[in-house]
Amino acid sequence: MPLSVLERVAAETLDWGGTGMSVMEISHRSKEVAAMCSETQELIKSLLGLGEEWEVLFCQGGASLQFAMLPLNFAGPGGVCDYVDTGVWSTKAFQEAQICGAAPHMAASSESDDFTHIPDKFDFSPKPKYVYLCTNNTVRGTRWATFPQDAPGPLVGDFSSEFMARKHDLSKFGLAFAGAQKNVGPAGLTIVLIRKAFAETARKGLPRMLDYRVYLEHGSMYNTPPVQAIYVSNLIFKWLRDEIGGLAKMEELNEAKAKLLYGYIDQTGGFYRGTAQVGSRSPMNVTFRLAKGELEKPFLEEAKKEGLSGLGGHRSVGGVRASLYNALDIQAVETLISYMSAFMAKNG
Amino acid sequence: MPLSVLERVAAETLDWGGTGMSVMEISHRSKEVAAMCSETQELIKSLLGLGEEWEVLFCQGGASLQFAMLPLNFAGPGGVCDYVDTGVWSTKAFQEAQICGAAPHMAASSESDDFTHIPDKFDFSPKPKYVYLCTNNTVRGTRWATFPQDAPGPLVGDFSSEFMARKHDLSKFGLAFAGAQKNVGPAGLTIVLIRKAFAETARKGLPRMLDYRVYLEHGSMYNTPPVQAIYVSNLIFKWLRDEIGGLAKMEELNEAKAKLLYGYIDQTGGFYRGTAQVGSRSPMNVTFRLAKGELEKPFLEEAKKEGLSGLGGHRSVGGVRASLYNALDIQAVETLISYMSAFMAKNG
Repeated sequence: MPLSVLERVAAETLDWGGTGMSVMEISHRSKEVAAMCSETQELIKSLLGLGEEWEVLFCQGGASLQFAMLPLNFAGPGGVCDYVDTGVWSTKAFQEAQICGAAPHMAASSESDDFTHIPDKFDFSPKPKYVYLCTNNTVRGTRWATFPQDAPGPLVGDFSSEFMARKHDLSKFGLAFAGAQKNVGPAGLTIVLIRKAFAETARKGLPRMLDYRVYLEHGSMYNTPPVQAIYVSNLIFKWLRDEIGGLAKMEELNEAKAKLLYGYIDQTGGFYRGTAQVGSRSPMNVTFRLAKGELEKPFLEEAKKEGLSGLGGHRSVGGVRASLYNALDIQAVETLISYMSAFMAKNG
Repeated sequence: MPLSVLERVAAETLDWGGTGMSVMEISHRSKEVAAMCSETQELIKSLLGLGEEWEVLFCQGGASLQFAMLPLNFAGPGGVCDYVDTGVWSTKAFQEAQICGAAPHMAASSESDDFTHIPDKFDFSPKPKYVYLCTNNTVRGTRWATFPQDAPGPLVGDFSSEFMARKHDLSKFGLAFAGAQKNVGPAGLTIVLIRKAFAETARKGLPRMLDYRVYLEHGSMYNTPPVQAIYVSNLIFKWLRDEIGGLAKMEELNEAKAKLLYGYIDQTGGFYRGTAQVGSRSPMNVTFRLAKGELEKPFLEEAKKEGLSGLGGHRSVGGVRASLYNALDIQAVETLISYMSAFMAKNG
């Protein structure tokens, strides 16, 4: 997280906004919390350039609960919904639709290519309730550069790992959700963007905490929302707006970081090798391997000693992964490249 | 929240436990977070004196999601489960069981007495999957002093508003849950105590975030838990253990606060009048009315000017409510009584 945000969180811990209370103590029915939550929703809409046809909901349970809420609300028993599989997170979403009794159809998958790219050919159902995709895949280091424009149903998607990291083209989306813990704030908050007209198509009579309408009708205050997480997100969004200069600028910075690192990797003559196909590369999660596999362990261990931690690939695939989320600046990428150069010089 | 806890949260915001990171940033898969979560579970078990037959789960979605998870896991379609209605929260839990397709049976209700007491006569089903109750009722200011010992199924209950405020007799319970935001920590964390043998009776094939088994099997880390809220709760539990001296002592302090306030109310000759019947009075939420109803508005307004805020009764019932949660000390009750005396002297 940005240092300026953390410093403000620390400074306001005992007295938030002149209330004399912590934001963790004050009632979610207070006018101060209500105003802060509304402001956060407006910040999100304004940063993303969303119009009146969209609503912002604050949910809990992470992306995993969204995996269930989507089919429960929009497919129902036997309801056909299309999925595109780009690796672990979309696989889980598909399985959850099965568990929920819907009839999910796999419209495309890059599994046979070890998920090294985003599919570009689709076998859509004639009239799916929605078409699901995961926009950025943290495990495989791939992302959708653009979204399908001719899908036969509204797109819905998991934006968790690149939410607010670039301008999002939501023109074909009915719903977009994001767990807050990557680019936005502390774990425990899930931000859901929902198009009002799409919400109208939701089924009725669901358990209330699983019913998008309940969140809509109560302004996400049917019960106590995760106030502290919303508050931190609010500060992050203001940092994005005021210190970064908005999403276009954020995207530019993120692209520059990714270009620097991929550019370096591509000119090491294969010593380092990116795992994602070039057109599907994620600017958020740069995944790569060392040609000499036996060097990966010492690469990670020595990196940690140099203060470069968290570089191990996801436990399901191994290798190396550099996550370049919003709060990471380009100097950190330069430091990483220096380390990679020195390591190659020693072991190349 | 206790000042010492808030001060520590503030001090550790930029560097938690020497990690150089905020607890809001560090991976939930890190050994530091795993250790902190385990320690929190152990603190809960130790404070409550729970044995190996119990597990502690970290859920999200508040009590409202528990209202659905209980019937989904333990009743199922048409499954008979008994409820005792003591006002708004248990009413909602009953309705949620209906929404979830179970066959909830109202075994007792004090609705005809305007929920001024806890029922003591029960019309239990022969073999309910569970018997549900809400142990402390924030709206009506009532609480269960003791729990039914002869219910025909395991008790399950909502402890949200008195969790860790007294020694809890869980001998007849299969499951107890509590939203963290009253006595424990920030909103966004729901603590679930579940007896392993009861968990074994849960239905299978539920959406994963609604399946208690998934939390059990993954140590509440199937997905990212609300780490920051768990961290604050951890500090609160240590405050309870080290600064207060444990739950027996906490109960003693809470009873003293309540006795002081009820004692004062009872000797005002009816100027102030407690709404709950004496045997059902809650030490957490002292609800009362002014005999002259027209004085309630000025009572609340002048109180606010004196810095005594949050005294309005729940919006569904009106009146006055003093919430005496753990972190409130007896001096605050004395201050309230001084104000009440002065107000009565002026208006009596």
